[in-house]
Amino acid sequence: MLKDKHPLEAGNIADIMANIGKVAAASARQLAIVGNEQKQAALIGMAESILRNRQAILSANALDMKAAKKSKLSKAFMDRLKLDEQRIEAMCEGIRAIAELPDPVGTVIAEWDRPNGLHIERVRTPLGVIGVIFESRPNVAADAGALCLKAGNAVILRGGSDSFHSTRAIHQCLVEGVEKADLPPGCIQIVPTTDRIAVGEMLHGLGGTIDVIIPRGGKSLVARVQQEARVPVFAHLEGLCHVYIDKSANLEMAKNIVVNSKMRRTGICGAAETLLVDSKVANAYLPQILQALSKAGCQIRGSKEVQAIYPQADSAKQEDWSTEYLDAIIAVKLVDGIDGAINHISKWSSNHTEAIIAEDAMAVERFFNEIDSAILLHNASTQFGDGGEFGMGAEIGIATGKMHARGPVGVEQLTSFKYRVRGNGQIRPN
Amino acid sequence: MLKDKHPLEAGNIADIMANIGKVAAASARQLAIVGNEQKQAALIGMAESILRNRQAILSANALDMKAAKKSKLSKAFMDRLKLDEQRIEAMCEGIRAIAELPDPVGTVIAEWDRPNGLHIERVRTPLGVIGVIFESRPNVAADAGALCLKAGNAVILRGGSDSFHSTRAIHQCLVEGVEKADLPPGCIQIVPTTDRIAVGEMLHGLGGTIDVIIPRGGKSLVARVQQEARVPVFAHLEGLCHVYIDKSANLEMAKNIVVNSKMRRTGICGAAETLLVDSKVANAYLPQILQALSKAGCQIRGSKEVQAIYPQADSAKQEDWSTEYLDAIIAVKLVDGIDGAINHISKWSSNHTEAIIAEDAMAVERFFNEIDSAILLHNASTQFGDGGEFGMGAEIGIATGKMHARGPVGVEQLTSFKYRVRGNGQIRPN
Repeated sequence: MLKDKHPLEAGNIADIMANIGKVAAASARQLAIVGNEQKQAALIGMAESILRNRQAILSANALDMKAAKKSKLSKAFMDRLKLDEQRIEAMCEGIRAIAELPDPVGTVIAEWDRPNGLHIERVRTPLGVIGVIFESRPNVAADAGALCLKAGNAVILRGGSDSFHSTRAIHQCLVEGVEKADLPPGCIQIVPTTDRIAVGEMLHGLGGTIDVIIPRGGKSLVARVQQEARVPVFAHLEGLCHVYIDKSANLEMAKNIVVNSKMRRTGICGAAETLLVDSKVANAYLPQILQALSKAGCQIRGSKEVQAIYPQADSAKQEDWSTEYLDAIIAVKLVDGIDGAINHISKWSSNHTEAIIAEDAMAVERFFNEIDSAILLHNASTQFGDGGEFGMGAEIGIATGKMHARGPVGVEQLTSFKYRVRGNGQIRPN
Repeated sequence: MLKDKHPLEAGNIADIMANIGKVAAASARQLAIVGNEQKQAALIGMAESILRNRQAILSANALDMKAAKKSKLSKAFMDRLKLDEQRIEAMCEGIRAIAELPDPVGTVIAEWDRPNGLHIERVRTPLGVIGVIFESRPNVAADAGALCLKAGNAVILRGGSDSFHSTRAIHQCLVEGVEKADLPPGCIQIVPTTDRIAVGEMLHGLGGTIDVIIPRGGKSLVARVQQEARVPVFAHLEGLCHVYIDKSANLEMAKNIVVNSKMRRTGICGAAETLLVDSKVANAYLPQILQALSKAGCQIRGSKEVQAIYPQADSAKQEDWSTEYLDAIIAVKLVDGIDGAINHISKWSSNHTEAIIAEDAMAVERFFNEIDSAILLHNASTQFGDGGEFGMGAEIGIATGKMHARGPVGVEQLTSFKYRVRGNGQIRPN
């Protein structure tokens, strides 16, 4: 690691980071007025460079994997860290898909005329400089770099120490693509040290040069970022997603959606963690649904009322209603219709994604109106809570805050806007 | 003042504020699902109550005015504080206009279908709880209260100590309107103490209940809020607005727009502070324009090149380029065409509002594309940088940040959004 080779003292790190901020701000100003073709060329160049240099990337990744093995990091961690030919190709595919997206910058979002003849347009602009702080997955460097560039933003990448060699190798390819398209290399920078002081500097905004921080990783990383950041943050801390089965639900559909919401992938933020069932249909529906979950390998933790109907269930404790398992475990509770469901979800939800399975339109409308989560689904799996599934092409994460970006953060969410007002000599009367 | 009657200790204040936060959050949840008619009724009730109780409001204001006189507060301050029949009527007019605005909540901003049959809608939702911290103008209580309510948000008002009696009297009327429409009085609360500890509590978010803080007041208030707030802030610190006169400008139009931009009202944030003139037309244009400004009562501070053409100008120093005078003073400089204008504005602007006077479409496009301010105007006065002039009905301020709200903050900007996804049994394939 660079840290070992060139010991950087705290003072040096602050200087290095301040300089990275300045370079990013200057690059962002240049990038903001670049057309779509040039950005597309840079993105395609990035994908080509990654493909051409895949052996070097795999060698760098092997170094990280060796160190991870030595440090006895978990199997799940090693899986997130590992790169192979297939994952490298997927990374390139992702970048190419982003290249093909329409350019959000310059898009007129709204326009109107005033009685005095002024014509007002609200137009998308880049946000400026985005700091991305991530952990083990090296592909985040490629996804985040490509999305930020497409939206006209400079990005400062700070990967985890365990993926340092891999992300540095990928970053070199990204810069190659950027430079080939005659864009400033400062558009995509990487923090050259794994010292945590550098993260602290980023969270303080590098002298006002960083416009937003996006953390990608586990709960402790996101919590640290949310607590310490002095600049806006797009983040989700947890995806504590609920599925509610109304008495009007179609049983077969409910069963399929619950199993898919929980078990398709248990480790993603859109996976369901709590199942709420209308007590009016509990006797009729619960056994089949819980058997299907169990058959799919899911552990069931139920309230007493659930255990009375399905004795195989383990006991759910209070803490189960607030736990994001990210595993093949589900907490199950009976509720008193749509009111009970809304109350439970409003109390425990992390405001990420919730689904209602129902045929009763009134219940659906109340669920949609009264629950304040980023994504609400009717008769569909919570696993659709994803930017790609929304047709946004790619996402840098799901934001659970209510400011600026909410839900999947794709290229559009990485932009701001400004007003352009055209007149012909208007002055404002007193 | 309440503070004198019931001495509140720091511990008490924290408890009182925490309770205000809880009440606001609970009220916000109720208000979020209320229809437009009920909100309209509340707003009309608010206006009626203010009109009916205008003598009580004027008496409260007289107390504040007397204290202000005793404290020898400035004439400008006293003018902002003062209420009279006309100002009270204007306040009611403002609330009635907000009542008539379309309800932003529930509006579908975008909708699309996915190949798998999912129908996705992006729908406006309230933000939640808004903290408004303001200084001397008592009418801010009415404007902010009405705008927040229309957008479905609960608001916590904290007025300056010098306007304490006036804002409390107005607040009582607002609550009367809210209660008459069967909405919870907690929708509009006022901080019952002028102790600054209460502001600190608000800036820390009252236990996660405040979603955004909006400061309305002078630079030191806004700076304190921006520095200390641990929740998002919609604010503008300064309106350092520029007018650039291109060589292609119509001289007569340029003269009118410059005089209006600077002198219509010098104390508002959209007032021009710096005039940039293309050096190619300086000899031909500058004398007439500066004479017109001077005749309107404006003091001119020019660079050496400006003084060479117009010797009556005082000397501009470096600090003049970064000074928001809010007074009848203008700083004037020659620049080398559109490039020079863009460079100067990018360096010194507060990203609020800038105008270009030009007939050359290319110069206008470059100005619009390359300058990253909230509002850019072509051939129109900077004094149009205002929510009312934009047709937004009313504004709570102009945001100069790039997150969420930018430019005039009206009802739409006081909302967030969520996604509603309708399916018919879709599960996500592996």
